[in-house]
Amino acid sequence: MTEEQEFHVFSAEYLKDFSAKVFLHFGIPQDDAEQAADVLARSDLRGIDSHGVARLHTYFDMLTLGRINSKPNIKIVREKTSVAAVDGDNGLGLVVGPKANEIAMEKAEKYGSGWVSVCNSNHFGIAGYYPLKALERDLIGWAMTNSTKLVAPLWGAERMLGTNPIAVAFPGYKEPPIVIDMATSAAAYGKIEIALRNKSRLPRGWIIDKNGRMAIDPQKMVDGGALLPLGSERESGGHKGYALGAMVDILCCVLSGANWGPFAPPFALRQEIPTRSVGKGIGHFFGAMRIDGFIDKEEFKKQIDEWIHVFRSTKPAPGTSGPLIPGDPEREAEAVRSREGIPLIKPVVNDLLDISRQTGIPFTAS
Amino acid sequence: MTEEQEFHVFSAEYLKDFSAKVFLHFGIPQDDAEQAADVLARSDLRGIDSHGVARLHTYFDMLTLGRINSKPNIKIVREKTSVAAVDGDNGLGLVVGPKANEIAMEKAEKYGSGWVSVCNSNHFGIAGYYPLKALERDLIGWAMTNSTKLVAPLWGAERMLGTNPIAVAFPGYKEPPIVIDMATSAAAYGKIEIALRNKSRLPRGWIIDKNGRMAIDPQKMVDGGALLPLGSERESGGHKGYALGAMVDILCCVLSGANWGPFAPPFALRQEIPTRSVGKGIGHFFGAMRIDGFIDKEEFKKQIDEWIHVFRSTKPAPGTSGPLIPGDPEREAEAVRSREGIPLIKPVVNDLLDISRQTGIPFTAS
Repeated sequence: MTEEQEFHVFSAEYLKDFSAKVFLHFGIPQDDAEQAADVLARSDLRGIDSHGVARLHTYFDMLTLGRINSKPNIKIVREKTSVAAVDGDNGLGLVVGPKANEIAMEKAEKYGSGWVSVCNSNHFGIAGYYPLKALERDLIGWAMTNSTKLVAPLWGAERMLGTNPIAVAFPGYKEPPIVIDMATSAAAYGKIEIALRNKSRLPRGWIIDKNGRMAIDPQKMVDGGALLPLGSERESGGHKGYALGAMVDILCCVLSGANWGPFAPPFALRQEIPTRSVGKGIGHFFGAMRIDGFIDKEEFKKQIDEWIHVFRSTKPAPGTSGPLIPGDPEREAEAVRSREGIPLIKPVVNDLLDISRQTGIPFTAS
Repeated sequence: MTEEQEFHVFSAEYLKDFSAKVFLHFGIPQDDAEQAADVLARSDLRGIDSHGVARLHTYFDMLTLGRINSKPNIKIVREKTSVAAVDGDNGLGLVVGPKANEIAMEKAEKYGSGWVSVCNSNHFGIAGYYPLKALERDLIGWAMTNSTKLVAPLWGAERMLGTNPIAVAFPGYKEPPIVIDMATSAAAYGKIEIALRNKSRLPRGWIIDKNGRMAIDPQKMVDGGALLPLGSERESGGHKGYALGAMVDILCCVLSGANWGPFAPPFALRQEIPTRSVGKGIGHFFGAMRIDGFIDKEEFKKQIDEWIHVFRSTKPAPGTSGPLIPGDPEREAEAVRSREGIPLIKPVVNDLLDISRQTGIPFTAS
C-alpha cells in the first residue's frame, strides 16, 4: 500500500472546528475564522482535496511569518451603482473573498446585478464556493481568481498565468443546481503531483518542459516546465484556453489593481518570488445577477430542470453512461462525505498534527 | 487550381453597399439595413469569412420565405436597473444584436454595468462585433450567442449545443485592444468544410461520428456526427468546453426564454428542424462594464499596455515567434483587407451573383 492510499477519515465538522481554532490562534476574529474554515471544509466535502485542509499548513506558515494580515480592513475603494472595487488589505482570501462576494450579491439584489473586482487578497479556496453562496439567495453567481503562475500562454515556453478558474452556478427547481467550476488550464496541477508520486507518465497536452517542448514526464514540470492552457495546442484550441486565462487575469487583477500574470505573489513559501510587483496582492472577480430582472424566477428554474433532463437523456458515447451535468461529481462527493466523512492521506494528516504540536490545539488522527 | 484558391477581390464598402441594398429590398428600414450590412462587412474585414457575405444568401433565403421579420418591434420585456430581457420580435440578429448591445452599453454608462439577455432573435454575425462597439465607448464589452446544434456534450453521441461563442474585449492605451472571440467547440465547423472540399483528414479531437466514436474523416461529421467541445476528451478537459457551452446556452436562452440546446432553430434552410420548441427564436447575451466604476480609466489602459508588452515578451516555444495577444490575427486581417480588399472564393461570388439576378441589384464580379 502506498502512502497515497492510506487514508484517515474525519468528519467535516471536526476538520472545520480545527481549522477555525488555528485561524483564531493568529488573532483572526471569530466570525472570520469560522468563515475561512467553512471555505476549506466545503472544498473537502466537495471532493476537491487539493483546496481543503490540505492547504491549512500553507496558511499556517504565511500567518506565522506575518505575511497575511489577520485583522484586515476590507473596504470598497471605488464604486458605481452595480460595480465596485475592493481592497482586501492583505487579509486571508478565505475572508476577503466571502466579503467581496457579499457586496456583489447585495448589489445584485438592489440593482439587478453586482460585479466586484478585488485586489490585495490572497488565495480564496475553491472558486465554486462563491456561486454556491449566491444560489442560497436565488441569484446566479460568478467567481474568478488569479493565482501563482503555472500556465504558459499558447506558443510560450514559460509560466505566465495562474490556473485562473471560472465558476458560475444556476439554480434548478426540483433538480440540484448546475455548478461550473473549472480551471482554464488543460489539467490541474494536483494531477501532475499524483503522477510524480506514482511515477507515471502524463497524457500529451498537459505540460511543456522548460524549453517549451511538449512533455509527458511529470518531473519536467517541476524542472521549470509549465502547464498548458485548456485546448493544449493550436490545432485543438490552446489559444482559447489561453484567452480565457487572460480574461480572468484582467478582470481579477488589471481591473482591481492586483498583481497580474507572472507577478502574482506565491501562495506557498517554497514558491519563487516574482521579480516585480505591478499591484497589490492577488485579485478576484465576483458577480451576481437577479434572475427576476430577466425572467420569472420559477419559469427560469423549471426550464433549468428541463435543460438537465434533456441533457441527461443525450445518447451516450460508447463506454460511458452519457453526459454529466456540471457539478454532478462535486455534489455526489458532498453527499457521500457528509455521511461517511472526509478521507485524508497521511501527509495531510501529518501536516495537521504538526500544526497541532506547534499551536497546542488538539488534533487526534483516527 | 482548386475552386478554393480562386479568389475575387472586393472592397469592404462595395460588399457592404450590396448587402445593405439586399436588406432594403425586403423592406428592412435604411438604418437597420446599413447596420446589418456593417456586421457582415466587419466580419469579412476581420478575416472571419464564414460569417460575412458568405452568409448573405442564407439571410436572403430566410427573408424571401418570410421566416425573418423585416420590421421587428424590438423591446425590453423586463428590467431591473442594470439588467434587462429583450424580445427581438424575430428580426434579423444583425439588427436585434446591435440594439440589445446598445441597451447594455447605456445601462453600463448609467449604472456601472449592463447585462441583456435576448430571445426571439436570429443569427447575429460575429460575436466579436459587439464588444468592439463597447470599446468605442470606452467600456469593457461581452457578447455570447447560442446557435444551431453542432456540438456534443462530453460523453454524448449527438449534437446538443451550438458552437456558442464568447467574446470579451478590453481597451489598451497606446496598444490596440485585447479582443477575445472564441467558439466553445474544439474547432470551427468551417474547418470541417474545408477538409471536406480538400478531401483531407481531421486532427483527432475535433469530431465524433454518429455513434459517438472519435473520427478523423470529415464525412463522418456530415453523416450525423458532431463537433467536440473545447478540450475534446475527458482527459484533456472536454468537460470544461462542454461547461462553457452550457453556460452560454443558459445565459442566452434559459434566461431570456429562447430555444436552448438542441432546440435552437436552424440558421439555413437545409438544416434539420428541431422536434420541439422550448422558447422563442435563438438567444444572445450582452454585457458592458464601466472601467471607471472599478479603477481610474487611464491607469487601467496603461496596465493593459504593460500586460501586452509582458506577454509579447514571453520566451517563445520552439518553432514559434512567441504568444499572440487575443485579437492579433483579426486586427492584422483588418489592416490588410481595409487596404487590399476582401478576397471571396468563387462559390460565394456565385451566391452574390444569384442574389443580384433575383433582386435586380447590380453586382459585378471583378
